[in-house]
Amino acid sequence: MSSSRRATIGDVARRAGVSKATVSLAYSGKRPVSEATRQRIFEAAEDLEWTASESARALAMSRTATIGLVLARSPEVISTDPFFPRFIAGCESVLAEAGMGLLLSVVATEEDETAIYRRYATGRVDGVILLDVQTGDRRPALMRELGLPAVLLAPSPAAAGLDDAGFDNVGDKSEDEVETTAFPVVLAENAPAIRDLVSLLVEAGHRRIAHVSGPLRYVHATERRNAFEAAMLEHGLDPSLVVDGDFTAASGRSRTLELLDREPRPTAIVYANDVMAIAGLSLARSRGLLIPEQLSLTGFDDSDLAAHLSPGLSSVSTRADEVGATTARTLLATLAGVAVPITRVDGPTVIARGSIGPPSDLD
Amino acid sequence: MSSSRRATIGDVARRAGVSKATVSLAYSGKRPVSEATRQRIFEAAEDLEWTASESARALAMSRTATIGLVLARSPEVISTDPFFPRFIAGCESVLAEAGMGLLLSVVATEEDETAIYRRYATGRVDGVILLDVQTGDRRPALMRELGLPAVLLAPSPAAAGLDDAGFDNVGDKSEDEVETTAFPVVLAENAPAIRDLVSLLVEAGHRRIAHVSGPLRYVHATERRNAFEAAMLEHGLDPSLVVDGDFTAASGRSRTLELLDREPRPTAIVYANDVMAIAGLSLARSRGLLIPEQLSLTGFDDSDLAAHLSPGLSSVSTRADEVGATTARTLLATLAGVAVPITRVDGPTVIARGSIGPPSDLD
Repeated sequence: MSSSRRATIGDVARRAGVSKATVSLAYSGKRPVSEATRQRIFEAAEDLEWTASESARALAMSRTATIGLVLARSPEVISTDPFFPRFIAGCESVLAEAGMGLLLSVVATEEDETAIYRRYATGRVDGVILLDVQTGDRRPALMRELGLPAVLLAPSPAAAGLDDAGFDNVGDKSEDEVETTAFPVVLAENAPAIRDLVSLLVEAGHRRIAHVSGPLRYVHATERRNAFEAAMLEHGLDPSLVVDGDFTAASGRSRTLELLDREPRPTAIVYANDVMAIAGLSLARSRGLLIPEQLSLTGFDDSDLAAHLSPGLSSVSTRADEVGATTARTLLATLAGVAVPITRVDGPTVIARGSIGPPSDLD
Repeated sequence: MSSSRRATIGDVARRAGVSKATVSLAYSGKRPVSEATRQRIFEAAEDLEWTASESARALAMSRTATIGLVLARSPEVISTDPFFPRFIAGCESVLAEAGMGLLLSVVATEEDETAIYRRYATGRVDGVILLDVQTGDRRPALMRELGLPAVLLAPSPAAAGLDDAGFDNVGDKSEDEVETTAFPVVLAENAPAIRDLVSLLVEAGHRRIAHVSGPLRYVHATERRNAFEAAMLEHGLDPSLVVDGDFTAASGRSRTLELLDREPRPTAIVYANDVMAIAGLSLARSRGLLIPEQLSLTGFDDSDLAAHLSPGLSSVSTRADEVGATTARTLLATLAGVAVPITRVDGPTVIARGSIGPPSDLD
């Protein structure tokens, strides 16, 4: 999130292959710039982590210098889901530079959530970040009604109402509605990484692969489980070895116990997060199983510990901080009048470590 | 943080041994209530997690329904220090109930910090929470100048400018200044738990005990190290087996490697956080050491994983969520006109698990 030298407008212009004046125009909106050029400039600025001074000026004139984020989850989730603190850290790294703050509100019910957004709209925030977007989400319509600028973070095109072709997060709305419903989307997909993990295990020779899911009320947990099942089917393998965890270490331990007692037992377990995988790894070792010879394990999140266990835990880097930074940057660009309909962040990436190996037939 | 039944004003009155009317008066401030009684009532409300409706009414009339929290640390710290997300979750659990939001700002320099507080004071927040309080801290004076209500969270009486006798967070100020400088303090001490851990290890028979510290630029890391050295001296043991970690898994691993190569090597290691301890435990096991027979280890934070490793990691519960909730509740009480000069939260507690045992002489 830090760079040795701060990028300049010249760097952005060079990278985008345009003049400095064009970069300036793209940000100020004073004269029209083609959408393709504007997109290229924005991507260059994105890559170089550059914030336009015009953008900064526009932001400085904003009434509140505040971005709103409403979490419709229990406060405990903030502390147990490793995505949140990293996402918020990423947001703050961008907001701090722009001299802005993040207003965090936690709500228990949909009613409370609506009330908060209504309060936000009375000049309390300049715009909001919408997390956990789902199909049929009522918030985009509410934001439109309230005139609140917003950015959606979505874990899949479907969740954002996007078809494969691109920007269309409006479902079956009429053309009239399209123009006003559409919000910028930041897309960070979960499924491809799970598919890659399963492929890696299958290539290593595994056939009996189990999945310990997260709590299925969360979209990202459901997506990881669905992706696991789809990947197993693609390889012609039985996708039914799925047990429900809840992202806690306790469930990682108890579900692993359950799986290790099956006959025949799985030779590999794909966990929906690192905490469950680390508890499972520790349990398996205490039972005398050799890792990875007798059991391969994989996590998700690439937490700080994963790389420094012995053996290292194979995991998936979600780049939550980059996702947070990109989401904040997209919202700031929106507030500065720059249209950024859709930004795909580099998806989560598999990081293979010592916890994956070929299965032995020793047991 | 959740309870099966919401407490009522009657529950608070019973627990404090007063009438419901007195509880109401203590919160409304409409007629005087003795300081001792008020304190007792507040503690009862605290224990029962009850928020006075009078307090709620006062808060509803507040201009901003927002509490400010400025972090003068790098954004990364939010995601790597497990205390922050839990502390914030605890704050939010109380603020959400009061219909309030938390405005988070991250700053790089003291100048930026002052600028943010000045902006906060222009009707943007009702009050602020001051973390990482140190002796000679300039923020209390700034809050007074700006007229911003504040609560200090301090890890030791000294850090809050308190002497052992009680409330005196004003240092060498004149009496005139005392009245206006003093802020409510929430006190959550680190040192006693480290002393308890060392005692536990000494009682188990350990003599060569090492400490892997956190980054010493943080007050709480320094306090843990100082407490370790003091405890070793109290037991007549050599306190010099201290190596500097930085709270990351990488440093936990590398410092453990270093300690295990010493001759004679330590029989126990006290780590300044769980992540370093878990990396150390994993490394020690991969080297064939039996835990705890050949090496005892302890962490700090009591993270979700600690209880569910095999063996379980002995650790220290910091109750960061309770500390956050208490801090938020203290600030809300302050805003509602209730004087709560000092609140001691139950200090961190040692949780002994399988990673501590008598040292063997097998090696």
